[in-house]
Amino acid sequence: MSLFKKHKETLNKAIDAIHDRAFFAQYPEHPSPKIYGEEADKDGREKFQAGLNKKFEDLLQESPEAWVGQEESPYMQKPLGILYPSFSPNTLISRSKTAWSQWRNISIDDRAAILVESLERFKERFFENAYATMHTTGQGYMMAFQASGPHAADRALESLALGYEEQKRFPEKKLWEKPMGKFNIQLNKTWRAVPKGISLVIGCSTFPTWNSVPGLYSSLITGNTSIVKPHPGAILPMAIVVAEIQKVLKENGIDPNVCQLAADTYDHMITKELAEDPAVKLIDYTGGSAFGSYLEGLKGKTVFTEKTGVNSIILDSVEDVDKVAQNLAFSICLYSGQMCTCPQNFFIPEEGIKSPNGTISFDEFAQKLVDNINGLVDNPKAGPFVLGAIQNPNTVAHTEEAKKLGSKVWMKSRSIENPMFKEARTATPIVVEMTTKDKDKFTKELFGPVVLLIKTKNTQESIQLASELAEAHGAISCGAYTTDNLTKNAIMDAMALAATPVSFNLTGGIYVNQNAGFSDFHVTGGNPSGNASLTNPEYVIKRFTWVGFREPVEE
Amino acid sequence: MSLFKKHKETLNKAIDAIHDRAFFAQYPEHPSPKIYGEEADKDGREKFQAGLNKKFEDLLQESPEAWVGQEESPYMQKPLGILYPSFSPNTLISRSKTAWSQWRNISIDDRAAILVESLERFKERFFENAYATMHTTGQGYMMAFQASGPHAADRALESLALGYEEQKRFPEKKLWEKPMGKFNIQLNKTWRAVPKGISLVIGCSTFPTWNSVPGLYSSLITGNTSIVKPHPGAILPMAIVVAEIQKVLKENGIDPNVCQLAADTYDHMITKELAEDPAVKLIDYTGGSAFGSYLEGLKGKTVFTEKTGVNSIILDSVEDVDKVAQNLAFSICLYSGQMCTCPQNFFIPEEGIKSPNGTISFDEFAQKLVDNINGLVDNPKAGPFVLGAIQNPNTVAHTEEAKKLGSKVWMKSRSIENPMFKEARTATPIVVEMTTKDKDKFTKELFGPVVLLIKTKNTQESIQLASELAEAHGAISCGAYTTDNLTKNAIMDAMALAATPVSFNLTGGIYVNQNAGFSDFHVTGGNPSGNASLTNPEYVIKRFTWVGFREPVEE
Repeated sequence: MSLFKKHKETLNKAIDAIHDRAFFAQYPEHPSPKIYGEEADKDGREKFQAGLNKKFEDLLQESPEAWVGQEESPYMQKPLGILYPSFSPNTLISRSKTAWSQWRNISIDDRAAILVESLERFKERFFENAYATMHTTGQGYMMAFQASGPHAADRALESLALGYEEQKRFPEKKLWEKPMGKFNIQLNKTWRAVPKGISLVIGCSTFPTWNSVPGLYSSLITGNTSIVKPHPGAILPMAIVVAEIQKVLKENGIDPNVCQLAADTYDHMITKELAEDPAVKLIDYTGGSAFGSYLEGLKGKTVFTEKTGVNSIILDSVEDVDKVAQNLAFSICLYSGQMCTCPQNFFIPEEGIKSPNGTISFDEFAQKLVDNINGLVDNPKAGPFVLGAIQNPNTVAHTEEAKKLGSKVWMKSRSIENPMFKEARTATPIVVEMTTKDKDKFTKELFGPVVLLIKTKNTQESIQLASELAEAHGAISCGAYTTDNLTKNAIMDAMALAATPVSFNLTGGIYVNQNAGFSDFHVTGGNPSGNASLTNPEYVIKRFTWVGFREPVEE
Repeated sequence: MSLFKKHKETLNKAIDAIHDRAFFAQYPEHPSPKIYGEEADKDGREKFQAGLNKKFEDLLQESPEAWVGQEESPYMQKPLGILYPSFSPNTLISRSKTAWSQWRNISIDDRAAILVESLERFKERFFENAYATMHTTGQGYMMAFQASGPHAADRALESLALGYEEQKRFPEKKLWEKPMGKFNIQLNKTWRAVPKGISLVIGCSTFPTWNSVPGLYSSLITGNTSIVKPHPGAILPMAIVVAEIQKVLKENGIDPNVCQLAADTYDHMITKELAEDPAVKLIDYTGGSAFGSYLEGLKGKTVFTEKTGVNSIILDSVEDVDKVAQNLAFSICLYSGQMCTCPQNFFIPEEGIKSPNGTISFDEFAQKLVDNINGLVDNPKAGPFVLGAIQNPNTVAHTEEAKKLGSKVWMKSRSIENPMFKEARTATPIVVEMTTKDKDKFTKELFGPVVLLIKTKNTQESIQLASELAEAHGAISCGAYTTDNLTKNAIMDAMALAATPVSFNLTGGIYVNQNAGFSDFHVTGGNPSGNASLTNPEYVIKRFTWVGFREPVEE
């Protein structure tokens, strides 16, 4: 059976799911032994541990020019000691060019088959990758497994399926016959989806896999080669993915340099040199806004960014304030506010939040939120695992400094003990009260577990501020609580124009931070938080060009 | 019957045609009395003539701040004397903002219905528009009718149909149900295609309608309002289109300022002021590269450009050299080389062009081409009508100056007499021989009827030069003549990478200059001749943003 036949059904199911947008997951998110095997977790952990303080030898990139690696575990606060083969930008570009002529000339079906197969191989390493993700990003085990494993693989499948569909949306050939009265003009026409060239995928330190694979698989399915440049602090998760892709390429007679890893170090970053190379036509980037805007400004490149944003919660009226406070406390604590979808600015009317049991005052709500955060943080069976660890030491300092921002500190940030890793770098949320006069202080992303409770005149002002901030400074998520339909419509209108998705009235086990593959568009591309969206058609079609050929039919 | 029901079939047929890519035309290109009525041509001509030296009062834009107009007929070399209502950029922007809130909130079906209806109304004015186009652009009657009338309307329908389809590609709402073991999480999700804002459509002087309506209809169908800024030398053709759109808007209770005309004058152009206004989010532009690149560089805008390119003909081997020379002579003469698809650089191997009857030397081919051009130009029943007139007096001067470029002038440019318009500004093609050493002289577009015959070492060098120029300086079309399959594949590969469509072995009544709606992508967007393509999905989906909303299902 051909590889394409083997994966055709998966591909078609994925394409259907993209258009259906109901729940769909090719890769189960639960790290259950029943699904993944009794030994899967243990094997993964052991494989991760066995790789520490060694060369990472899984890649098929020949003749390394050096071996480098500076990753540190936020849980152990010590180096992982893993060394990756390193190559100069010139070598990487030159190998990518060579590999391109082969890759762009194989059929779309074959490319799709190879890429789906690579995800199946990656699946075998989900647990190893979970530990790799924990010990580079600081994510808790469950998030590390899900986000870097099945959720990332689903996002990759989504992107490659849409890329496949878009390339098949117009015919490969057609007889064009124009009636001219006495005779017909007949032209044989053919079209090609022509890839743009080399794609550079620049990873981030907090979601190294989840934020890298959609761009990577979108570029590869559309016939571009790719150079994956992970963050020097979080290389291993993507090194595993690239290694699996390379193996499947080689097995199928394709140059593994179609997809290369470009590991670098903090003291010698090669990102700019790669990005500015004229052969690099596509750039995918997740990270800070300054570097993202620099990339967006490069001439002759198609650039896909996810940058920073200021996410808002609008509190107007609730059914059950305790459920709301509980839900939001979890959203705030999850991975210590290091998610791009984490809420930061909580807009609360000075007259309080309406509910069937009377109005909850600003102070009452603030106290409920703090109580819920403390309840979660201080629960030794939940807190350490939900919070995880802090990826970057600067984040701890910045979180503490947030106490200077407002009029009142409702809750200070502190560290808690992780029962499994005594050395873990942790920080609990800080909660600060502000007024709308402090606007200049809450217009930027304060990365980490920083919660600003902003007292507004009324909900109208809350909506106005949330949409204005999203439009001017970007927003990736927005949560809103209202039991009033007119208010709900007003929020939808305002946030739609600010190109920000809104989750209404979330309580229970679903959170504003979460975005589901095949259903939620992640980042809209329509505000300054990023110019791209996972995964809308624009995300894949900008990676190739339709070129047509025509010739008269021979008589 | 609702307007949508009336036009649903037209819309569906157009969507099918886009994906089928066989011949399709909603609007017949032949200006035949049988199709358009016995009096249609006469009526159109009279209506055009009656409008000269008067105010153009068809628009529904209230309280003009002034009346302006500086159009001149290239056939009569005198002013048309038509005055258009003029408005400050502030007025235009402010009215557009007001109209937007209504337009973006009506259904996609209603927008589609209104826009198809406007094309039906425009159809009633195809002949009037043909004369308007002749006497602003200098196009011959047949081209003016076809390009500004049915071909433009077909391109508009194509764009609006694709914009309609893209907005319907994802569901408006969906129940998302995630199995969590003991219970399911249920979210009601909805999605909106949110328009970006105000669209500015900047027209050119040579194809005022054909190059403006695709962007205009793409922006309108996706819920944006539009300000149409025609070239001050060619306002009337688009004034007619805008007037018809406004009438249909008003009839359907919509603010006609959804689509406004922004006429200006050479001495006070308002294009930059409009383009730089923060409310303008979309810009469509056809014209010179310098201004196009300035627009592409504006921050916070999505810009669609068609700029200049250097189009090549690659001559390798032919079946019948006379048919080839005849076909190319026509392509060169058509509208005196003022088409963006007109060939300029003819690459001919120094060893000549192979044919079944022996090799045709460089000189032999040059002579054949010149003979065919002269034959056409000097035929009083064809020449004046194929050549038309020269839109811009500078083009005549530039064409003459081309004689300084090369080693030998095979044919000088001269003026010919138009039997209907004694004052017509005309220029026949100039044919100049060059060597590859003159490369710096043939890397730019020489606008007008300028033909450069470039002697290359061999076909390989011809291909190399054609693709290199396209990649570095842009190309909108390419013609190639080869009877050898390997050579053909080499040309396809090289030009595909330079994102340039290729017409092979055209002879008879089909020309490299022609691009058919619903089948040929016009400009690929992949080389410096423009960043947009008529009409690929990218052309429409960049005009709106997908935004999602979600909320738990009430228990």
